[in-house]
Amino acid sequence: MTPSAHVDGGRLWGRLMDLARFGGGPEGSVDRQALTRTEIAARAELVRWGRALHLEPATDAAANLFLRLPGSEPGLPPVLAGSHADTQPNGGRFDGAYGVVAALEAVNAFRDAGLVPRRAIEVVAWTNEEACRFAPGMTGSTAFASGTLTDAVAEICDADGIRLGDALAEVLAADIGLPRLPLGRPVAAYVEAHIEQGPVLERAGIPIGIVSGIQGTRRYRVRVIGEAAHAGTAERRERRDALMAAIRMVAAIDAAALEPEDVKLTVGLFQVAPNAPSVVPAEVLFSIDLRHPDDAVVARVDARIRAIVEAAASPCTATLRQIQHDPSLEFPPALRDLVAGAAADLGIAHRTLASAAGHDARHLHGVCPTAMIFVPCRAGISHNPAEWAEPADLTAGARVLTETLWRLAMR
Amino acid sequence: MTPSAHVDGGRLWGRLMDLARFGGGPEGSVDRQALTRTEIAARAELVRWGRALHLEPATDAAANLFLRLPGSEPGLPPVLAGSHADTQPNGGRFDGAYGVVAALEAVNAFRDAGLVPRRAIEVVAWTNEEACRFAPGMTGSTAFASGTLTDAVAEICDADGIRLGDALAEVLAADIGLPRLPLGRPVAAYVEAHIEQGPVLERAGIPIGIVSGIQGTRRYRVRVIGEAAHAGTAERRERRDALMAAIRMVAAIDAAALEPEDVKLTVGLFQVAPNAPSVVPAEVLFSIDLRHPDDAVVARVDARIRAIVEAAASPCTATLRQIQHDPSLEFPPALRDLVAGAAADLGIAHRTLASAAGHDARHLHGVCPTAMIFVPCRAGISHNPAEWAEPADLTAGARVLTETLWRLAMR
Repeated sequence: MTPSAHVDGGRLWGRLMDLARFGGGPEGSVDRQALTRTEIAARAELVRWGRALHLEPATDAAANLFLRLPGSEPGLPPVLAGSHADTQPNGGRFDGAYGVVAALEAVNAFRDAGLVPRRAIEVVAWTNEEACRFAPGMTGSTAFASGTLTDAVAEICDADGIRLGDALAEVLAADIGLPRLPLGRPVAAYVEAHIEQGPVLERAGIPIGIVSGIQGTRRYRVRVIGEAAHAGTAERRERRDALMAAIRMVAAIDAAALEPEDVKLTVGLFQVAPNAPSVVPAEVLFSIDLRHPDDAVVARVDARIRAIVEAAASPCTATLRQIQHDPSLEFPPALRDLVAGAAADLGIAHRTLASAAGHDARHLHGVCPTAMIFVPCRAGISHNPAEWAEPADLTAGARVLTETLWRLAMR
Repeated sequence: MTPSAHVDGGRLWGRLMDLARFGGGPEGSVDRQALTRTEIAARAELVRWGRALHLEPATDAAANLFLRLPGSEPGLPPVLAGSHADTQPNGGRFDGAYGVVAALEAVNAFRDAGLVPRRAIEVVAWTNEEACRFAPGMTGSTAFASGTLTDAVAEICDADGIRLGDALAEVLAADIGLPRLPLGRPVAAYVEAHIEQGPVLERAGIPIGIVSGIQGTRRYRVRVIGEAAHAGTAERRERRDALMAAIRMVAAIDAAALEPEDVKLTVGLFQVAPNAPSVVPAEVLFSIDLRHPDDAVVARVDARIRAIVEAAASPCTATLRQIQHDPSLEFPPALRDLVAGAAADLGIAHRTLASAAGHDARHLHGVCPTAMIFVPCRAGISHNPAEWAEPADLTAGARVLTETLWRLAMR
């Protein structure tokens, strides 16, 4: 009997719904932003679940949370599996949470099977994947992979002016009795299970996606500075209207990214000051999120964006700041084959697909063999309370993850 | 010696700067939004100033503040003069405050001259002219002129969900010992002094503008409903991106209002939800402020705006709500002539000009002979910390106001 036979879909689902209560609102919504008290509470629940399974909880300077199942050969680097526990401000119950809970289910299955792997297996919840409160995101996996949490990262502030470093300190202060592991320690492999956040698997009717790689991403902030004026008196030709300048930019940027049609361009954040109906806006800050699997396409749209911001600013001034640039990447074929073999041996249908979204796996990919397992989600909807995945698919994903982790941990 | 000879420019300027400390910030900025604790404090200061001059402070159900100089014939309806004490969130020191302080200076001049008018003269500060916290604005003057504060107005909420009715109650509760006058009581005349908020007088080098009328205004809120989606995975052709739909609308509305060139069209408020960089926006709420002296032009642009909102919404849905419609108006020539005569007798240069901005005078115009006196402000800048008016011009305005009020109160 393989350890994956001990995967309990009901238990997995139960933990997922329990976790969704932290920050949970109406109709499936979850607001559990990174490093908030809500996330601290969810984190404490994860520690309790780990302790109940006699796992060893630990953290690090980036407040990543680890729940370690010890191996029989303590000197070997561990295998890591997990995702993140933070959500968007009006997110759903599956993004991130599924990867953490699926990894915990895998470890639970080993415990139930009475199996001890050679290598330790660590369930991990990375800090601030989502970037909605502190941007850029993937703070925990970046710090873990690079071996350092930089001063620049600690100085990032949220919308209320709270420093990321201070929010981290608050989370770590709430960790009673957790050992603090070093950043940058050796890892044998990393596997992340996640909802697809796209429609491919659902349309194909296939429960398991083996991720070939992650599309390239650039993220920007554009600040447009104009001048406040009275809406009723300032002549339009004499205005320096920051909103109208920003509108021209966004309209042109949207048009510039229409080709090829699979370019993902999003302006998700758009803030106006003073944001009063009778005042010509003095300032606008907006975000641009640009993604495509082909780095050449990303570079081409990037050049257009920069040209548009410069050309459309007048009579205002505008500055564009690129806050993130992740080239596209391909996960190692050998590990993808190992995951595919695990799925095949379990008789679970699977296919290869690219990840359109960024994930913490991007950063682990830089330091150890890394794989991702996708499961379908309804209509591809994510970052939305309507996020939904079928329990049967979630269970299939956890079984493939369990089998994969077992094979990796016995190597 | 006319009473206007007793106008003291230094005292006027001192009171203006004193008032600016309530909500005052760096570089001339004032944030004294309607019915806030800051405005309550400013109001209390006005009451103290009034009591020091032995004026009779009073209020009404709309929390308008009156400082009454009694006349020799108490049975006659009073002459009112004033403006508003609230400001935009990042406003300046002159808009509104000048009209109140200038009226107080006029009454102070009568006291200094030992003159008692036939009619009482009341200095007034109207509630919530600005509309930035509770929209639409001019709450106090509207209620005063119509004789009632409607339930619908009391139910208007600010961005924090606070009801206007509750905010009013808090202000009235802070009024210790002020008699509560009825709304809709008879008034002999109303005169409002104000900075021009436009460049005409400054460019002409003329200190006094006699306002011919106020341009027509329509104000709207447009709500665009789309669907939240993941910025990295949702295909653009399948998105219902509320921000991109709103951008298309605003760009088209801006273009539709380019002719004639003196149409004032402003989108000052633009709110995005969930407003997160990695989430396709689900909802946008934006304001439109449309003004022109010719009602036919306003009507033509109005029709275009409605057509654009309907046409540009797809694949989102959009609703347009007109929250205010004030036709253009003309102040009575007889009273304008009286103001012009006062200025001429004082040897102060003056000219006629239209008001591009709305003012409380609009509503008093419906119930009594009403006039407005403009003074120049630097570069026409208003609703902005950089708002500035020359002390000599402010003094000239107060002198013309004083002479005007004297003539009206002796009729």
